Amino acid sequence: MRFLNKLLLVSACTLPTISYALDVEPANWWVGMNKNTINIMVHEQNIANEQIKLAKYNGVKLNKVTRTDNPNYVFLNITVTDAAKAGTLKFNSSEASQSFEFPLLTRDKNSAKRQGFTSNDTLYLINPDRFANGDKQNDTVPSMLEAANPSIKGGRHGGDIQGVINALPYLNDLGVTQLWLTPVLENNMPDYSYHGYAITDFYKVDPRMGSNQLYKTLSVKAKEQGIGLVMDMVLNHFGSEHTWVKDKPTKDWINFNGEFKKGKNATSHARQTIQDPHASEYDKRQFNDGWFVETMPDLNQRQPLLSEYLIQNAIWWIEYADLSGIRVDTYSYSDKAFLSDWTKAIMQEYPDFNIVGEEWTSNPAIASYWQRGKNNQDGYTSSLPSVMDFSLQESVIQALNEDESWNTGWVKVYESLANDFLYPDTNNIMVFADNHDMSRVYTELGQDVAKTKMAMTLFLTTRGIAQMYYGTEVLLDNTPSKDHGDIRIDFPGGFKGQTSNAFTGKGLTSQQKDMHKTISTLLNFRKSSTALDKGKLVHFTPQQGVYSYARISDDQTVLVFMNKNTKELVKNIEYMQEVIPKNAKALNLFTNKTQLLGSTVALPAMSATVLVINTP
Amino acid sequence: MRFLNKLLLVSACTLPTISYALDVEPANWWVGMNKNTINIMVHEQNIANEQIKLAKYNGVKLNKVTRTDNPNYVFLNITVTDAAKAGTLKFNSSEASQSFEFPLLTRDKNSAKRQGFTSNDTLYLINPDRFANGDKQNDTVPSMLEAANPSIKGGRHGGDIQGVINALPYLNDLGVTQLWLTPVLENNMPDYSYHGYAITDFYKVDPRMGSNQLYKTLSVKAKEQGIGLVMDMVLNHFGSEHTWVKDKPTKDWINFNGEFKKGKNATSHARQTIQDPHASEYDKRQFNDGWFVETMPDLNQRQPLLSEYLIQNAIWWIEYADLSGIRVDTYSYSDKAFLSDWTKAIMQEYPDFNIVGEEWTSNPAIASYWQRGKNNQDGYTSSLPSVMDFSLQESVIQALNEDESWNTGWVKVYESLANDFLYPDTNNIMVFADNHDMSRVYTELGQDVAKTKMAMTLFLTTRGIAQMYYGTEVLLDNTPSKDHGDIRIDFPGGFKGQTSNAFTGKGLTSQQKDMHKTISTLLNFRKSSTALDKGKLVHFTPQQGVYSYARISDDQTVLVFMNKNTKELVKNIEYMQEVIPKNAKALNLFTNKTQLLGSTVALPAMSATVLVINTP
Repeated sequence: MRFLNKLLLVSACTLPTISYALDVEPANWWVGMNKNTINIMVHEQNIANEQIKLAKYNGVKLNKVTRTDNPNYVFLNITVTDAAKAGTLKFNSSEASQSFEFPLLTRDKNSAKRQGFTSNDTLYLINPDRFANGDKQNDTVPSMLEAANPSIKGGRHGGDIQGVINALPYLNDLGVTQLWLTPVLENNMPDYSYHGYAITDFYKVDPRMGSNQLYKTLSVKAKEQGIGLVMDMVLNHFGSEHTWVKDKPTKDWINFNGEFKKGKNATSHARQTIQDPHASEYDKRQFNDGWFVETMPDLNQRQPLLSEYLIQNAIWWIEYADLSGIRVDTYSYSDKAFLSDWTKAIMQEYPDFNIVGEEWTSNPAIASYWQRGKNNQDGYTSSLPSVMDFSLQESVIQALNEDESWNTGWVKVYESLANDFLYPDTNNIMVFADNHDMSRVYTELGQDVAKTKMAMTLFLTTRGIAQMYYGTEVLLDNTPSKDHGDIRIDFPGGFKGQTSNAFTGKGLTSQQKDMHKTISTLLNFRKSSTALDKGKLVHFTPQQGVYSYARISDDQTVLVFMNKNTKELVKNIEYMQEVIPKNAKALNLFTNKTQLLGSTVALPAMSATVLVINTP
Repeated sequence: MRFLNKLLLVSACTLPTISYALDVEPANWWVGMNKNTINIMVHEQNIANEQIKLAKYNGVKLNKVTRTDNPNYVFLNITVTDAAKAGTLKFNSSEASQSFEFPLLTRDKNSAKRQGFTSNDTLYLINPDRFANGDKQNDTVPSMLEAANPSIKGGRHGGDIQGVINALPYLNDLGVTQLWLTPVLENNMPDYSYHGYAITDFYKVDPRMGSNQLYKTLSVKAKEQGIGLVMDMVLNHFGSEHTWVKDKPTKDWINFNGEFKKGKNATSHARQTIQDPHASEYDKRQFNDGWFVETMPDLNQRQPLLSEYLIQNAIWWIEYADLSGIRVDTYSYSDKAFLSDWTKAIMQEYPDFNIVGEEWTSNPAIASYWQRGKNNQDGYTSSLPSVMDFSLQESVIQALNEDESWNTGWVKVYESLANDFLYPDTNNIMVFADNHDMSRVYTELGQDVAKTKMAMTLFLTTRGIAQMYYGTEVLLDNTPSKDHGDIRIDFPGGFKGQTSNAFTGKGLTSQQKDMHKTISTLLNFRKSSTALDKGKLVHFTPQQGVYSYARISDDQTVLVFMNKNTKELVKNIEYMQEVIPKNAKALNLFTNKTQLLGSTVALPAMSATVLVINTP
């Protein structure tokens, strides 16, 4: 007690005047939440020395004020009971200037019952800095460390949220139903900040991208076109320019004592240590606590105040921006017990929501380990609904580039999908041909349009949630190099001085237009196809260079044939009789012709054939 | 009723005289079995037309006589209750000449509680035709279709059970604790019968191998030297010269209607169809019902009488020959529901027994699917205690042949073992460098003795049950070809006219003697090492070309270092502090020198170092 009084005495003469707005996180909460007890983080010099009280507010209680080893932080634990009504809480500090208000807002109707993205959707992945520059005013923002410099691959090119808003009609026409933007939160780093994964403020959209309000506007306008918004969240690390580096909320907030030592504590990327029953404690720490790079300190989610902060932050954005999903970066790099808590808290708040975790592994035993409902041998439970299928991505590229044999070519795709017995929910696996971290599908397939169409048809008709990377519809390519700057190339039509424009079609080659039509056909068909949504997948071992499968729902059967032969093949399909309805009339999705299905089908050279049979 | 009378009438005049001995299977049962209700298969022309009765016997009841679509078979279902005493049952047929006796024997004490092979064991795999010719009289047996012909790779070379009996002292000295012989049951096939997998009588040892009695003698004599006997059983297929082909017990006894049609019903080997939730019925049938080859018809274990026959046959051999384990050939090729029943019945009879199934896959998700205790997502339950680790086998060969990089070399071994999270019981996984169906380890490692020693040290010190292939201790090699005849090469000393003799050491090269010593050291150490038995495995990500791990039991820690560098390396081992007891005195297993462990260890070039620390 004496100690506390002494500190108070000292603090009284040293406190500077700081604006409160930036230092209270979250800035508000809502009434009627499942998560009705939260921790408000307040950051100000020596604030822990003050007495903070909540002015009487019906139905709201200040349970506890948690102080840490850093006197510049307090965590106010409040409960907003069902009796509380929307309004403004007033927190009064013993130092008057530190008092602040905390709004309690009304939730959107149906917020809790929001539907997350599903297997009926196609997510369109955008690097917003590279998609479209909708607001030239914010290309360079004087208060931010890095200015625009479109001439370099790792620089900021000026794309922004307004650019995405402007593109919504184009995306809707294409057949996109969900948008996944790489992080748009503040990345106030001296350089190489365009990618968004070095977040310096977890509650604020980067001003070079727009604003929190504009992000919300994007959500509203997208929804008007039937398009959902998926936020890319980073739980494992953050930007080294964040206040937390200079002024850590607790000593154990950042792994390896908050210090990066070259050759000592970079992450080993040995993700398998998480599952491996034989992994040493040494290796587990090197992986899990190791830093990505020096500019991205690694968060210690075992610290309960940080865990709570990250849970609240996710729920805040879902509620604030009316999200339909979350994509989690470097999923398994975060503490696994925390991931269990974090996913559980979100899914309890929004039972029909969706979250997809990035576990970059071609080992489906590891990917499936994280999916909700998995009977893990070690008892680990997860509430993560969706994972990404890197195994299928790799297999499809290999299958199209390899000659056929007993263990090369289509058999790789067949075997990859055969591992689905490991997943508790195969409709909730996200499939993709590429993403922002890997060489583009068109490049990987040797700029072969026929192969690229086959790959995209496969990803857009097999089981799961489809994800495509921006620009695949106009054959964007990173042949110059696998540098991220080449992969995340400026979308044609989004920036000044480009020779072609995908939004208008101006200057596109016939190949680009043809690809655009294929993608648009598939995406728009997906929207209404019950077979492609949750229809049962039945596939057949590859025969004669052909991989064939069916998607079957109560009222529709879709047959897909992938013919890798360089000649037309009249394929006997009697082996498929178990999936072909009798006297079936099939509509060829790409030719729009209807045929009566007999014992053979003619498959054009190097092509995907999609036959749609409606079964009333 | 009228129909039955008519048949009886016909049969009365057509029945030939056939000796009963061969046609009653099993030939006996035991009192006091858990499985006390059995089906006795009786095979004789038109026997189904007879009335068969059991002469009164205290405690035994004939429950049912099952007739099938073939009048030449009946199945007598009897229950041997606890009240029954050993003796002889008398079955009386309405046709007097078909009456027969059926002994009920007394079980060996502790039979039910027999201990199967465990992680404390090393199984030594022998092709008995190629190991040692102990009885020249039975090389060619006139009543059998194929005579000895040692001059051809696929011929019978004359090795036999007596040869194995003669070798027991050698095997005991080497440190072997279990013998796995490839099948010794009758294979009365016109040619290529030496391998034993085309069984023509499931209850009879092939006379060219010896006799049922001699097999039992092998078991007894092996046990006297502390060596157990593991029988290689084939559930999936059998030899086309078996009576069942000419006279099928039921129409559905053999898959694909008992006929082999080239290009139509050979098995697809698409094992993954068993787990794959998307597999078509067409593909499942092609795999599961497809035949291995024309000379090995595929058994339909969905037929309940056959399922029961195979269960009884296994229990009969365990009881008759006092087995300590079973190895099941081509495990997943049999019906999966049957496999569940078969393993359950055996393990209920002998709770501490062991059975290892051959699932030849480098996908641990599939291998672990079959292990007892696995929480399979599809609900499949198995009672199979042990599976084989083909993934580790493949990884070790690759690791030793590849240069080190982030994804080649030792990391493959590390990642293979990291998948152990999939297994419910990692001590019950069988590890091996090679077997009778694959190129020998010494060949695969380019006849490099140092690499072969490292591989064998790894397999003999990592987790699990160890299995080695005969002759590895003297560097047997199949460099001439990967033909099975070259792999299953005659063991030196086992046959006439050989220039060297591994049993006596005569004519062995110094490299062979050196390898023999290494294997003998490891095998004999395994016998008493608690750490290598069920000690916890803790391994470390490869560093500087070194893969390192510890096995830790309550009273012993074994440290293993695999140094792939071509120079000695003084390795800093501070990263291993969590597994090294303080002030540890370590015995080097190969040099027999003791050292106090500091912060480094000197690892000789291209070698395995095994340090034993006893912790009282």
